[in-house]
Amino acid sequence: MKIGILGGGQLSRMLALSGIPLGFEFIFYTQKNNSVKNLGEIFYGEYNNYKALETFAAQCDIITYENENIPIETLEFLENIKPIHPNSLSLKITQDRFLEKTMFQQLEIPCPIYKKTETLKDVLNFSNQYGYPFIIKKRKNGYDGKGLIKISDKTSLSNLSTDFLKNTICEENIPFHREFSIIAVSSATEQRYYDLCENQHNNGILITTFNRINDPMFELAKIYIDRVIKHLSYVGCMAFEFFQVNDKLFANEIAPRVHNSGHWTIEGAFTSQFENHIRAISGLPLGNTHSRCHTKMINIIGNMINKKEILMKDFCHLHDYKKEEKPGRKIGHVTMIIDES
Amino acid sequence: MKIGILGGGQLSRMLALSGIPLGFEFIFYTQKNNSVKNLGEIFYGEYNNYKALETFAAQCDIITYENENIPIETLEFLENIKPIHPNSLSLKITQDRFLEKTMFQQLEIPCPIYKKTETLKDVLNFSNQYGYPFIIKKRKNGYDGKGLIKISDKTSLSNLSTDFLKNTICEENIPFHREFSIIAVSSATEQRYYDLCENQHNNGILITTFNRINDPMFELAKIYIDRVIKHLSYVGCMAFEFFQVNDKLFANEIAPRVHNSGHWTIEGAFTSQFENHIRAISGLPLGNTHSRCHTKMINIIGNMINKKEILMKDFCHLHDYKKEEKPGRKIGHVTMIIDES
Repeated sequence: MKIGILGGGQLSRMLALSGIPLGFEFIFYTQKNNSVKNLGEIFYGEYNNYKALETFAAQCDIITYENENIPIETLEFLENIKPIHPNSLSLKITQDRFLEKTMFQQLEIPCPIYKKTETLKDVLNFSNQYGYPFIIKKRKNGYDGKGLIKISDKTSLSNLSTDFLKNTICEENIPFHREFSIIAVSSATEQRYYDLCENQHNNGILITTFNRINDPMFELAKIYIDRVIKHLSYVGCMAFEFFQVNDKLFANEIAPRVHNSGHWTIEGAFTSQFENHIRAISGLPLGNTHSRCHTKMINIIGNMINKKEILMKDFCHLHDYKKEEKPGRKIGHVTMIIDES
Repeated sequence: MKIGILGGGQLSRMLALSGIPLGFEFIFYTQKNNSVKNLGEIFYGEYNNYKALETFAAQCDIITYENENIPIETLEFLENIKPIHPNSLSLKITQDRFLEKTMFQQLEIPCPIYKKTETLKDVLNFSNQYGYPFIIKKRKNGYDGKGLIKISDKTSLSNLSTDFLKNTICEENIPFHREFSIIAVSSATEQRYYDLCENQHNNGILITTFNRINDPMFELAKIYIDRVIKHLSYVGCMAFEFFQVNDKLFANEIAPRVHNSGHWTIEGAFTSQFENHIRAISGLPLGNTHSRCHTKMINIIGNMINKKEILMKDFCHLHDYKKEEKPGRKIGHVTMIIDES
């Protein structure tokens, strides 16, 4: 069976590396070749090149994607040719912060107060009603801290361009004491859940993740992610990020894919998020998601570290994405096994 | 760094899958493409095509191999162009049952009584001196029970062809109660050892392996494999198979490579034999070799199993080598995690 993946970054790379042992072959559709060289055939094309997409789809048995910033039209086009997981409804909602939050409300999942905004007037209305600080987020295409601005007071509003304010939401700033995600994997017939992943960010970029075994918030997070999975008829891995304030959870956002906060599962869980995503979309039974140990995942950002130095430490595993070094770019990660649980 | 591998079977496949995350690229030199499609560039050529070998070597930074049945001249030729691990001395000795056993004697590692034989007369001399049953083995190119015959009595000797008897050894039949291997990995500066792998064969083909944590014979096996590593200035993974009779060990044979009895290390050890082989030959520090759990590895032989059925069981992992089905051929394996240790 041939699996087509839209995207050629590290998530595609790790999906292929986990699916090849199961006997799958991979084909990638990407604008540029980052990380999937030598893991399968690569189609270079833009997401609006429907002729190229059609040729690509003809060679795949099923299709998946590594990034939610794909035009919804692309997915809808492909969906008419071959099975795609997660489905286009899941992409449509999770790629748009406004639709996503509207879904949270509809499913009675607590989330920060938010309003759709287009102009400075809309933003001022929000600040008058809810005060400072708050966050302005582009509805689409935000990642790694891009596409959002924290507004502390009225004077900082004057710096905002009319252009930036189009297609935004204003969102209450939650003074959370902890940020975590839960990763679930759903096939047509079963759901499984990884232990909570506690995340530490720096300038919006994920730096480290710890898995938290038997976390007291696990059950509540599971209830919330289950509502979303059911609502979207979701197949594949899903990451749901939360802010925690005391014993309350506020939904932050959903990624309709394998997620950086789940990289620890390669060494730290009985079946990795990558293998389980492949199993789910291909109709294979899901693998056990329990943690094997406490782990710490550390992103390598900007420049490659000294590999010898890091591998000198026992229980360290290195994942090099083979990407060009660039400030702020995730180019690899290290998983440290802290102790056996 | 580009790593060249001689061979395109499942061992090359799993070496590449474990080395790619570390950032290595792979090139394969093989007579036919079995299992390494889409994992790197493939050179098709015979082992005596020195022009093709030279072109291949020019593109590699280091070279390794997955099979001891490579002509020694091929390795010696390549060794003059690029670094090769394990070295040609290691290949020369371990690919020849007579030289191997002579080394065991020299290093005071107990092994079955043996004699170099060429003709029926030599064989009769052996049987007169040591009695029946005994085993006749081709000095070279034996694997999976091929190239050896067990002789129970004088009448079965009459069936042997003059041709088969050339370049053989006769070997005492050891009535062992257990067969196991120890896998060690050696870099230029350090050695590490995996837990003993207890092996069950059927018609000479390995069927299942269990890792035996804290086995009482581990220390003795470690002493013996250490002597060989030191003697050969060995770099890479080595598998050393033993027969156990009560508390005595008899050396059976050595594989100068990653080994089928170490496949359990992918899920069952902190660092797999494949990753550690790559680390050793590339000069990276070795990873921890401790067992993470009790495991059972089961070879898939001849026909592919029903994947859904096997993956339905929790804690089962499948490795499909993408080889054509054929009676007696190893085309995949399953690792079952029995319990967490």
